[in-house]
Amino acid sequence: MSAEPRIDLNRLLNRLNQLAEIGAIEGGGCCRLALSDEDGAGRDQVVSWMRELGLTVRIDAIGNVIGVRAGREDLAPVMTGSHIDTVRTGGRYDGNLGVLAGLEVVAALNEAGLVTRRPLAVAFFTNEEGARFAPDMMGSLVYAGGLALEEALATVGIDGSTVGENLQRIGYAGDAPVGWLRPHAFLELHVEQGPVLEREGFDIGAVEGVQGISWSEFTVTGVSNHAGTTPMHLRHDAGYVAAATGAFLRELVEAIGPGQLATLGHLQLGPNLVNVIPNRALFTVDLRNIDEAALQRAEQRLFAQVEALAESEGVIVSRRTLARFEPVAFDAELVGRVEMAARTRGYRVRRLPSGAGHDAQMMARLAPTAMIFTPSVGGISHNVREYTTPEHLEAGATLLLDLLLELAA
Amino acid sequence: MSAEPRIDLNRLLNRLNQLAEIGAIEGGGCCRLALSDEDGAGRDQVVSWMRELGLTVRIDAIGNVIGVRAGREDLAPVMTGSHIDTVRTGGRYDGNLGVLAGLEVVAALNEAGLVTRRPLAVAFFTNEEGARFAPDMMGSLVYAGGLALEEALATVGIDGSTVGENLQRIGYAGDAPVGWLRPHAFLELHVEQGPVLEREGFDIGAVEGVQGISWSEFTVTGVSNHAGTTPMHLRHDAGYVAAATGAFLRELVEAIGPGQLATLGHLQLGPNLVNVIPNRALFTVDLRNIDEAALQRAEQRLFAQVEALAESEGVIVSRRTLARFEPVAFDAELVGRVEMAARTRGYRVRRLPSGAGHDAQMMARLAPTAMIFTPSVGGISHNVREYTTPEHLEAGATLLLDLLLELAA
Repeated sequence: MSAEPRIDLNRLLNRLNQLAEIGAIEGGGCCRLALSDEDGAGRDQVVSWMRELGLTVRIDAIGNVIGVRAGREDLAPVMTGSHIDTVRTGGRYDGNLGVLAGLEVVAALNEAGLVTRRPLAVAFFTNEEGARFAPDMMGSLVYAGGLALEEALATVGIDGSTVGENLQRIGYAGDAPVGWLRPHAFLELHVEQGPVLEREGFDIGAVEGVQGISWSEFTVTGVSNHAGTTPMHLRHDAGYVAAATGAFLRELVEAIGPGQLATLGHLQLGPNLVNVIPNRALFTVDLRNIDEAALQRAEQRLFAQVEALAESEGVIVSRRTLARFEPVAFDAELVGRVEMAARTRGYRVRRLPSGAGHDAQMMARLAPTAMIFTPSVGGISHNVREYTTPEHLEAGATLLLDLLLELAA
Repeated sequence: MSAEPRIDLNRLLNRLNQLAEIGAIEGGGCCRLALSDEDGAGRDQVVSWMRELGLTVRIDAIGNVIGVRAGREDLAPVMTGSHIDTVRTGGRYDGNLGVLAGLEVVAALNEAGLVTRRPLAVAFFTNEEGARFAPDMMGSLVYAGGLALEEALATVGIDGSTVGENLQRIGYAGDAPVGWLRPHAFLELHVEQGPVLEREGFDIGAVEGVQGISWSEFTVTGVSNHAGTTPMHLRHDAGYVAAATGAFLRELVEAIGPGQLATLGHLQLGPNLVNVIPNRALFTVDLRNIDEAALQRAEQRLFAQVEALAESEGVIVSRRTLARFEPVAFDAELVGRVEMAARTRGYRVRRLPSGAGHDAQMMARLAPTAMIFTPSVGGISHNVREYTTPEHLEAGATLLLDLLLELAA
């Protein structure tokens, strides 16, 4: 005898708030860098909730955690999930919403006494953000077979320690083989992290795919010298090459056209003194485009520009690819189902690409996959002011419930 | 009965090498930050040499040390000198050459049994580099009355301790009042610290004056946001304003014309992550020009450009002046004497401005002042690879001897 399952917004909000207390930072945000002590404490909290909800929890060798709710038949499960690691100045919704809304769906089904035909699985993946270890989306990438486990474990982070060491340290080097559970379908709920839905007045985004991502790190080596005695034409200024590249990015996006994004987010100069010409500049460029050909054109122009700048300045540049993902198209039928289910509920829905990378794009290699977006107020993300209204949280979780039930039937 | 006084290059080199052993760092350079233990040990060594040479040594309240060699008449002395403190990655010639060449002149006169009409004084001034305590050229600035003694003593350094405490600690809080000895003329020998003399094939620079210096620090506050989801036209990127300013500096020097220098030496982004639009950029701009009016034009253009960039990017900028010195013109007659004396010796000499600040620019407030430059190989300075050939060291010291004799006659 089962009632109609229903999302309990307060229960979802309570879990979001409780998780946000772990690694809380000023302004209401979170700092739970991947595999830090704070991430470990966040993981312990979510695993404990999974167990309370009756899920069978397994941890794999890269630290991905999957909780399974048995179905009536022993079939491939319908999986949902996201991540709970954050950037250094993260909000409380990015990633966490997808995981905790998955748990809220389980709670609603438990409350209604409803068992689905297929099993349901709720997962959180290791190091989605890439703020401590590159590449980002590491856990789901390894899960989907896109990166060797050994290579991922040996990755050295910004503090000099490896992924493997930190998994051991926080107790999340699990025994399940990566990729152990191959889902029937994968659906990820996430905040948009951009301004499109809010500005255009939509409640829900049916995500058609994910932009391609290209992260490059440039190391420029020039000659440090006295800022007061070295004529401009005799300088080998590593900082100038970095600055001129940062300025060039705006020309680049104009040249490539709509949809191209370019960001210089990280920059360090050496010796970094007011009166010394920098002999060293290390900086990153993040390029994104939904169109792989356009993304490649952007890369080529960027690399050519940096080389030309280095040549004219008489400095040496080396380049390293920190991450490179082609655009991913989600499963057309599943995207259609998301759109249809949203309309059925009366939500204003539009299709859109994802600007950010997500675990779903890795899981798309294993199973039909799609994503649901909820609006981000002001488009703000990776920031303590990240916010999604309770109404939109409820709409997203409700839609997740509807679709998981539909897919698991 | 006196012989012709003559510079002994080996004796000068030996003193340069012995002093360089104190605070020696890898690569042959020195780290004797002002008033550190290493600076104290360097001071002890130079004072001991002064006494061995028969100079009467007095230490003033800001730690400047002056050794006086009596003349035949009790007149105002001809003074030479420089500094022996270094930057963290300093060479062995910057400052030290001027002090030790002064001692070599005294040694040569002693050897020749020659007593000048006017007394001669050899000085080294406290904290010329400003690498530990701001402002730089502190000792000579206080000596010349440009900064109150109490204010200088209370200056807090990068390690949190004050100038006064450190003077006490290393035993150089002297009892002579600052400015106690007003020279008849001041002449400083120094390495060029720039590439002009070497590249143009000169042995000696007759320094006409010191460039004006303008140091500004800009703090840009924007909005951090996700690099993959925020359309370019909706960004408030603090890092872009910094980068575009860095690129603009090359246009600025073109616009202001020959002699203008501009350097972005220090830059820090926040949160400084590859996939987050920076919400904070702190950077410095170092502007220099021998012409005060041109320097002011450069400042105005720079400030206007940063404001315009901030306006169009929708970010907030604040500006702070870290240092501002007007250009200093040296005594025209004395500069002419330097040039003439160099030609008499057969040295290839050119007039040039000093790009760096020097104690001589402070002493110019008290007496007719000029400087002699020797070439810096590769123009490298504030670097362990700083180097001046023995031939040029000998030429500089010989010219100093000639001019001190001429001025003291």
